[in-house]
Amino acid sequence: MIKAVVFDAYGTLFDVQSVADATERAYPGYGEYITQVWRQKQLEYSWLRSLMGRYQDFWSVTQEALAYTLNTLGREPDAAFLAEMADAYNRLRPYPDAAQCLKDLAPLRLAILSNGAPGMLQRLVANAGLAELFDEVISVDSKAVFKPHPRAYEMVEEALGVKPENVLFVSSNGFDVGGAKNFGFRVARVARLPTEKLTHELEARPITPLTMFKALRMQEETYAETADFEVQTLSQLPPLVLAEQAGPMLTVGGSV
Amino acid sequence: MIKAVVFDAYGTLFDVQSVADATERAYPGYGEYITQVWRQKQLEYSWLRSLMGRYQDFWSVTQEALAYTLNTLGREPDAAFLAEMADAYNRLRPYPDAAQCLKDLAPLRLAILSNGAPGMLQRLVANAGLAELFDEVISVDSKAVFKPHPRAYEMVEEALGVKPENVLFVSSNGFDVGGAKNFGFRVARVARLPTEKLTHELEARPITPLTMFKALRMQEETYAETADFEVQTLSQLPPLVLAEQAGPMLTVGGSV
Repeated sequence: MIKAVVFDAYGTLFDVQSVADATERAYPGYGEYITQVWRQKQLEYSWLRSLMGRYQDFWSVTQEALAYTLNTLGREPDAAFLAEMADAYNRLRPYPDAAQCLKDLAPLRLAILSNGAPGMLQRLVANAGLAELFDEVISVDSKAVFKPHPRAYEMVEEALGVKPENVLFVSSNGFDVGGAKNFGFRVARVARLPTEKLTHELEARPITPLTMFKALRMQEETYAETADFEVQTLSQLPPLVLAEQAGPMLTVGGSV
Repeated sequence: MIKAVVFDAYGTLFDVQSVADATERAYPGYGEYITQVWRQKQLEYSWLRSLMGRYQDFWSVTQEALAYTLNTLGREPDAAFLAEMADAYNRLRPYPDAAQCLKDLAPLRLAILSNGAPGMLQRLVANAGLAELFDEVISVDSKAVFKPHPRAYEMVEEALGVKPENVLFVSSNGFDVGGAKNFGFRVARVARLPTEKLTHELEARPITPLTMFKALRMQEETYAETADFEVQTLSQLPPLVLAEQAGPMLTVGGSV
């Protein structure tokens, strides 16, 4: 029985591609390139720091990844510039169907579990006007490791008091789908890019940095357990969850 | 004092781009794309499996990463095909100056420390005719984690009996440079692509999958300590090491 629906933030509820406005404004002609390398290195640094036992919060990681990206273009931005540009990650656009999805799922407990630093998540959710739709906005920060380390996922039960088997974890990020399944959650993967569409995009040259990003980040991973559910949009999630609850729905409704 | 020089294998002594011959033959027009996504996912899966506590050896990881890559093209290759194609990683071309570099460093103890599974490394080194130039070829496999986890680097002292501060670790992979520094080795980074060259390549459109690979993998990382030494080619390493040894050279020579 699903008692709580817990969402990943970056890429799942919020579109990481929306930083391209800021990157293109700062570096005309390089916005798309910067956006892709920045996100990829942000993820890599979160994994590598966790693996090396050298945790720094996601605000640091986000700026380190941006510095790397701008270095590839021969730029050496100062700390103030990095912080200003990194703030684009606190102003990501939510996907258009995110708010309605959360409203439709309101009978259940709703939370975010994110790699984001607490301050980042607070700003992200407030800027998008979504703050009051969540029971909890949980950062992995106090565990000093990033997803997909199992310790990060423990925070859901600690914050919500809901056991892993009663959590539906929702993510569009393959590493997070794998990590959440590995931990013991039920998992819904948001698969916004059907493989046929990607394959078609790869056939139609050139293969751009954005296409490379899609190829690297938006397909089902092969190294981990697959999700229990798959949706193409957040709007497909509530009917699926509510159908799943059809039997025990009254109990769930009653417990909230 | 440097008593042992320990090399990373994939990307440092051996050119991962050399699988492009095999990938292009199997999928004409997609060789370059497959090569980049395959390598990127191979690294990601090694990090993510380590982070999730779900180690599988690098031979499995290499095939999982290839399966992911071919799936993006709408292909679903069988196990036999994956193994046959993945064997390209056992036949990587060594960089042209690798053999001479090893010969010039022969007064010191020489080893490989690699994420590769033992069988992969044995074949890789034998196929390249380099086997007799190493004192040890060390796989992380018995530690059941991949680099840059500190436990992986412990194997050098266990195999060679040389303390970390007397090891010069050589890698072209940023995550490995950072991991080796974090562990306590002295580190030489092989920086084959000067930033100015990359920046120039990024200005000259289109930004191809190979350029994206270079941008993601061939620049100095910003999240970790930097290397003690930097060379652009392996051929620059022996003079640098021997100069470093100039004082204590007799002692070192005597101890081998």
